[in-house]
Amino acid sequence: MSKDEYDAVIDGLREHLGELQRQARTAGIQSMIIFEGWDAAGKGVLMNQLLMALDPRGFKVYPINKPMDVEKVHPFFWRFWTKTPPNGDMSIFSKSWHGHLLEHVFEGKMDEKRAATRFEESNFFEKTLADDGYLMVKLFLHISKKEQKDRLEKLEKDPARSWMVSKSDWEQNKHYDDYLKAADELIARTETPYAPWAIVEANDRRFATVKIIKAVTAAMESRLAGNKPGTPPIRLEGGPIPDLLSKVDLSKSIPHDVYHQKLDALQENIMRLQYKIYNKGVPVAIVFEGPDAAGKGGCIKRLTECMDPRGYQVNPSGPPNDVEKTHHYLWRYWNNFPAEGNIAIFDRSWYGRVLVERVEGFCTPRDWMRAYEEINETERQLAEFGTVIVKFWLQVDMAEQLRRFEHRETDPFKTYKLTDEDWRNRDKWDKYTKAANEMFYRTDTAYAPWTIVEANDKLYARIKVIETVIAAMEKNVGNMQQKQIRG
Amino acid sequence: MSKDEYDAVIDGLREHLGELQRQARTAGIQSMIIFEGWDAAGKGVLMNQLLMALDPRGFKVYPINKPMDVEKVHPFFWRFWTKTPPNGDMSIFSKSWHGHLLEHVFEGKMDEKRAATRFEESNFFEKTLADDGYLMVKLFLHISKKEQKDRLEKLEKDPARSWMVSKSDWEQNKHYDDYLKAADELIARTETPYAPWAIVEANDRRFATVKIIKAVTAAMESRLAGNKPGTPPIRLEGGPIPDLLSKVDLSKSIPHDVYHQKLDALQENIMRLQYKIYNKGVPVAIVFEGPDAAGKGGCIKRLTECMDPRGYQVNPSGPPNDVEKTHHYLWRYWNNFPAEGNIAIFDRSWYGRVLVERVEGFCTPRDWMRAYEEINETERQLAEFGTVIVKFWLQVDMAEQLRRFEHRETDPFKTYKLTDEDWRNRDKWDKYTKAANEMFYRTDTAYAPWTIVEANDKLYARIKVIETVIAAMEKNVGNMQQKQIRG
Repeated sequence: MSKDEYDAVIDGLREHLGELQRQARTAGIQSMIIFEGWDAAGKGVLMNQLLMALDPRGFKVYPINKPMDVEKVHPFFWRFWTKTPPNGDMSIFSKSWHGHLLEHVFEGKMDEKRAATRFEESNFFEKTLADDGYLMVKLFLHISKKEQKDRLEKLEKDPARSWMVSKSDWEQNKHYDDYLKAADELIARTETPYAPWAIVEANDRRFATVKIIKAVTAAMESRLAGNKPGTPPIRLEGGPIPDLLSKVDLSKSIPHDVYHQKLDALQENIMRLQYKIYNKGVPVAIVFEGPDAAGKGGCIKRLTECMDPRGYQVNPSGPPNDVEKTHHYLWRYWNNFPAEGNIAIFDRSWYGRVLVERVEGFCTPRDWMRAYEEINETERQLAEFGTVIVKFWLQVDMAEQLRRFEHRETDPFKTYKLTDEDWRNRDKWDKYTKAANEMFYRTDTAYAPWTIVEANDKLYARIKVIETVIAAMEKNVGNMQQKQIRG
Repeated sequence: MSKDEYDAVIDGLREHLGELQRQARTAGIQSMIIFEGWDAAGKGVLMNQLLMALDPRGFKVYPINKPMDVEKVHPFFWRFWTKTPPNGDMSIFSKSWHGHLLEHVFEGKMDEKRAATRFEESNFFEKTLADDGYLMVKLFLHISKKEQKDRLEKLEKDPARSWMVSKSDWEQNKHYDDYLKAADELIARTETPYAPWAIVEANDRRFATVKIIKAVTAAMESRLAGNKPGTPPIRLEGGPIPDLLSKVDLSKSIPHDVYHQKLDALQENIMRLQYKIYNKGVPVAIVFEGPDAAGKGGCIKRLTECMDPRGYQVNPSGPPNDVEKTHHYLWRYWNNFPAEGNIAIFDRSWYGRVLVERVEGFCTPRDWMRAYEEINETERQLAEFGTVIVKFWLQVDMAEQLRRFEHRETDPFKTYKLTDEDWRNRDKWDKYTKAANEMFYRTDTAYAPWTIVEANDKLYARIKVIETVIAAMEKNVGNMQQKQIRG
């Protein structure tokens, strides 16, 4: 084809893709399009060729460079989770988690074990999104060693762009064969039915443009026709599931005077620990779950009463708002996972997926069955980053809950806390108990264990909560190297 | 009062404030609460005393430390604009724009002229928010020289907290009187009816707690009772307003072959300039306004066709979405103002306030009349940061618009672009013309001039747009010092 013929073909492909983008918007399909490939392969130019087909209202471009300081203080996938698109939108990445991994493998900065974990994490991230309906298109722009050399030389001669050529670009060209091997390995280990690679021969811009637009078009058409990548059926192993909640000794209590004495000492202690973990850069995530009126708010208040508010944040999880609804259920939590040195407290949490969403049918059985693994892997990544994870289930019995509801009805300062939904949830007590027991069984891990708190006596519960947090923080603070103090 | 009596008073104040917070939430009132004061005055502890009264669903705490890298590449107020709360919420700042200013004045890092500008900017920021209904409470925590010295010594002796004491804390204590003078000046120059200061004597925690809660309570009660800080009536000066749009020569056109020849050269040029401004860290903001079907999209496409998508972003301004509606009208634009080295293109913009919102009555006359000054000041701040600002009005006549509407009706790939609203807007042609003429008159500034583009001939318009952008970039690139290249 001549250049003009090619351009006519490209124009036609673009019009069609523009139409598909509008259909995907209506259908609420989220897409992640990833550009990887050789240095000087033309990521910028070729990405722009794709963008010319698209309505700017529906995509956002993310150049992934060296991490910014806010990214460094969060786990690796934080910067990518927070960039996943809302319903109907596209996130387009210039380099991604893959490029980062590739560089590390290529430069020998990562041993095989570490690299293997990263490959798994990468596949898991993509699977998690694909399972939720995200369309994933991964493009690898391939040029020959000679072509790369020619381009680097040409760039260096251009005064406007010579600064774009870095030492590492030439390193890549020098060790082209090694890099090719590393790239091959990356592609082989991250090629999946739900997030396949397309290799784009990029020596010629027009040829590559056609191939890229066609790859995105084919993926969208297939999705719009109703095809979803098949992931295997969920099989939850194990059982019978122990009924932990029936064994909780709810008679546990503590006298008022002992409570006040203990509380003062514990709060003083937690204040000191907070400064330590801030100073040492340890992130802490504390989860509160349990029935309505179990006393979560009261525990959080006593836990935070003597903390420095510049280092903790309470994240209440109400029903998702309009924006949260357009994202993956984990997205809002990734946005609030603690940075180094910070404490994030979750008043209800991502466990909503296997509790309220399961019981109320807000998601499919497949969704909540899959969630155990998603949650365990998420918490594993947090823990690997050094995050202290403490998870509480506050348990009360039905009689105590009734007493508290009735008290809320009559106390003018508490009546706002009681809603019709609380009464409805109460009717489903057994279903919530069953869901909670299964949750303990499947998500109690060494790195993120559950603590069931006997909460019929509020005072007993508060002391147990603070003591548990202190123990977890102390254990971990001892293990950490001192990090740099932030200004 | 004894400690216990104080605590009982505090509990009562908290319950009442909690109730007010719920009312403010229902009423949609946004609040900004600012903690400033001496080092070791107890900002953390006292802020937490306030938080204990509040529902965590309704506030967010922002510790303002040294700017992060993403903050450094934006104008000074970016980090604060992006943290303004949505309807019904509170943003609580530990240090703010004031603390930053105070340090600079105190340390003599800012000359009087620069400081005066910052004081004005600071007042303007607060006025802009207050005019839109934001409640502003500014607290200055005051301790004596001796008390500060005692506290710093105590902190230094505490192994868990000794790292918190910095050299600059001791500097402040050493030069207490100078600092006091600087603080006095800050307070005097930023004390306004719409954002008043409360001085909080903070030697005693309980006394200070009561005073803080009472200050916030009083401000909220007053607002809930319907009181708004009086700002003077708007008087727009000048006139008569020239009818620029009637003088536009819409017969201007350019032949096809000349267009293509010019376009190729211009696009090559703009690609090079983009690399230059990226390399030199110059931000660029390009605004497109004009009637429906004036060709804004087509101009943007030709402008960006050869740009690197990792360095530009197109921001279309549709009607505000659910989140944008809960914020100040400038908030969404602050979020998208270009970082150093980036190009932000606005397909419609903040000028919506004085165009569609004015004509359609989406805001009050007072709102849009005030907006000219708000916009000029915003653009001045961008320009002062080094941002190149280019503003286009694409003008077509009614006959040409009709031709384009009819074409869109029949072209299957363009029909989605035409909505009933376009026809309705057309009926208000004269009102939009009047609003546009007044907009040119009031917002055409040396640092952010308007360019009216004769757009009946699309080809002519595209060339003029690109040439204008190139001229503006070239002029500014020449003026800039080389900044560090980002990795």
